[in-house]
Amino acid sequence: MKPEILSELITTNDSKIIFMVMDGLGGHPMNGDLCELEEAKTPNLDRYATEGITGMLDPVAPGITPGSGPGHLALFGYDPLENIIGRGVLSALGIDFTLTGRDVACRLNFCTIDDNGIVTDRRAGRIATEINEKMCNILRENVSLDGDVEFFLKTVSEHRAVLVLRGDGLGGDINDTDPQKTGLAPREAKGGDAASEKTVKYINSFLQQTRELLKNESPANMVLARGFAAFDPLPTMQERYGLRAAAVAQYPMYRGLARLVGMDVFPRPNDYDAMLQQIKDNYDDYDFFFVHFKKTDSSGEDGDYEKKVKVIEEIDAWCGQLRDLNPTVLAVTGDHSTPSKFSAHSWHPVPALLWSENCRPDRVTEFGENACLGGAIGRMATKHLMMLCMANALRFNKFGA
Amino acid sequence: MKPEILSELITTNDSKIIFMVMDGLGGHPMNGDLCELEEAKTPNLDRYATEGITGMLDPVAPGITPGSGPGHLALFGYDPLENIIGRGVLSALGIDFTLTGRDVACRLNFCTIDDNGIVTDRRAGRIATEINEKMCNILRENVSLDGDVEFFLKTVSEHRAVLVLRGDGLGGDINDTDPQKTGLAPREAKGGDAASEKTVKYINSFLQQTRELLKNESPANMVLARGFAAFDPLPTMQERYGLRAAAVAQYPMYRGLARLVGMDVFPRPNDYDAMLQQIKDNYDDYDFFFVHFKKTDSSGEDGDYEKKVKVIEEIDAWCGQLRDLNPTVLAVTGDHSTPSKFSAHSWHPVPALLWSENCRPDRVTEFGENACLGGAIGRMATKHLMMLCMANALRFNKFGA
Repeated sequence: MKPEILSELITTNDSKIIFMVMDGLGGHPMNGDLCELEEAKTPNLDRYATEGITGMLDPVAPGITPGSGPGHLALFGYDPLENIIGRGVLSALGIDFTLTGRDVACRLNFCTIDDNGIVTDRRAGRIATEINEKMCNILRENVSLDGDVEFFLKTVSEHRAVLVLRGDGLGGDINDTDPQKTGLAPREAKGGDAASEKTVKYINSFLQQTRELLKNESPANMVLARGFAAFDPLPTMQERYGLRAAAVAQYPMYRGLARLVGMDVFPRPNDYDAMLQQIKDNYDDYDFFFVHFKKTDSSGEDGDYEKKVKVIEEIDAWCGQLRDLNPTVLAVTGDHSTPSKFSAHSWHPVPALLWSENCRPDRVTEFGENACLGGAIGRMATKHLMMLCMANALRFNKFGA
Repeated sequence: MKPEILSELITTNDSKIIFMVMDGLGGHPMNGDLCELEEAKTPNLDRYATEGITGMLDPVAPGITPGSGPGHLALFGYDPLENIIGRGVLSALGIDFTLTGRDVACRLNFCTIDDNGIVTDRRAGRIATEINEKMCNILRENVSLDGDVEFFLKTVSEHRAVLVLRGDGLGGDINDTDPQKTGLAPREAKGGDAASEKTVKYINSFLQQTRELLKNESPANMVLARGFAAFDPLPTMQERYGLRAAAVAQYPMYRGLARLVGMDVFPRPNDYDAMLQQIKDNYDDYDFFFVHFKKTDSSGEDGDYEKKVKVIEEIDAWCGQLRDLNPTVLAVTGDHSTPSKFSAHSWHPVPALLWSENCRPDRVTEFGENACLGGAIGRMATKHLMMLCMANALRFNKFGA
């Protein structure tokens, strides 16, 4: 939907939308016939499904396995094939770093080079995070760039860090300096356009100073840069939908993705009770609550079918309480599937339910992969779910006369 | 489907397609579990559904509530997001006015202004239609524009009229003169490009003469113009599909929409019997019959669930007779949903059936919102239904070798 068409349709009212994302929700049978969500006892989700509508969503396109970035963009109604998030930007979001429109971000790996400048270990033996932090301190305190440009250097974990350059007119079309294998020198950074050439000037200065400052350190005595990307802020949820949107999420990546579309982000809630409390405490001040649950994904990534079943049952117990808040719309789905069988994200479509008194209920009485195949949402692209939320919240005017 | 691809696929034969539109067909449970179509006894539609295929259609996109214009364009197979019909044009179509490619249309409201030219009532107290006609007569007889441009002024109802300017090189990118609230003077018309500036010259002349001619009238002593739009004729059904297409419709708006895509339009039929007779009388001369039923929508708009059920049952009884005509394809659907519960158009997908001996029947035995969820058409965009009609009429060649 083109923004200029969408903007003509939007109206506001006092409806509330709760948008629950169970990360990696979709599953696969492993040692039986049922997916994790089908195996789990989910009386609350089943009741929402009975009273609401259900379907199966493709986050990017049939057959495509999404990362967290495109998966969430689709959930927020932004076409993930039209709005590509660069890897450097995603890494910065993933450590709760707030980017601005003047920023170029990249990933840094601490590495080991020999006396001839040849890379001998691209990960410096996967140094401990504390050593990474020590190296970052050295660089932060000693590297100085030209007055025009600031830099921010943040430890991620082990050998991984994020570098952000902030200044006017910087571009992010820059190749990786990581040569991808040992026995080669780091590649020279080159910019694909004038703005990126400007960035390269600062990157080269940063890298030269780094080489000098770390030359007597071991095993990490240099860095390799990857995934350069300029941060191009997206239209906010307020701009796109007229929604005051807030995020309730325990993990920095998802708070970062919420910030990417202009949501207000509450402080990290310690547990599920705290998540509910954040919604309750802020219920009057927002129209839309993005509520993110991580453990469905992490248990799937661990290949732990039983754990994922248990995690789903815990979230089910939690979400029954949302009924008391009387939201206009409750949506529940995932950003992608993470079947325990694969121990990884997968391309399988993701079960979804939408509960609202305006939804024209279907006959599905269970929230699960096979049951949802027969639901009124059908199989559609994830990006349409936000449109259905808006419609059921009666926040769209008629299109055309 | 791009026209250049489509045009290569089209073939002609002596097949017949009857395309029945029950306006606002889709519904919603109101005081029970069933939608209006599900509640209605529809033995004929159920039999067509049993023998044919069924599905659920989104006229514009999931979540979007369509007006009649985009709803019908989608039915005729034209992408409603790519082919926007301006409001002035739609109003002209709605009073059976035949537009040409040299026309710019707008809506006029008769209004009341005070001695200082300030709008005191944007609708002149919603004057009776007869007074509107009297005012229009005054203007038609006395306003004269430059020799190059003709104007047509038509009463719609109450304070509403339509003005059409006809001439070469006119544009429709012109702001409303309606200030949207009282206490302000009418806004000055301005054109967004040279062609529209040309139109503005004539509009200003029309408005100045109107002000002079009506200055002693009361309460309607001026007009406000809104919804300017140039009429940009669409490719006809003949051009797009190779179909000789005709419209059987009681209401002017739908005859107008049929004319928009080049259909021949039969005179207003007085009742459903006359509608059948028009099809029979012209059966040999056309390939495609668009047959429009309004009362499903108007009963829904009135919030009258029982009436809508009854109207559906009447149309069901009528459509059983189509079997005797032995059409190659019969399609039945709506341009949007109009649930009685909402007393308005809605975004909910619309049940559809396609009956043809070439259709590969599904196992659905009932024409209704929930039953159609399981049908072979699935959930798809309304614009594809024409493609299925063409295919089942064996009017498409193979695409590619």
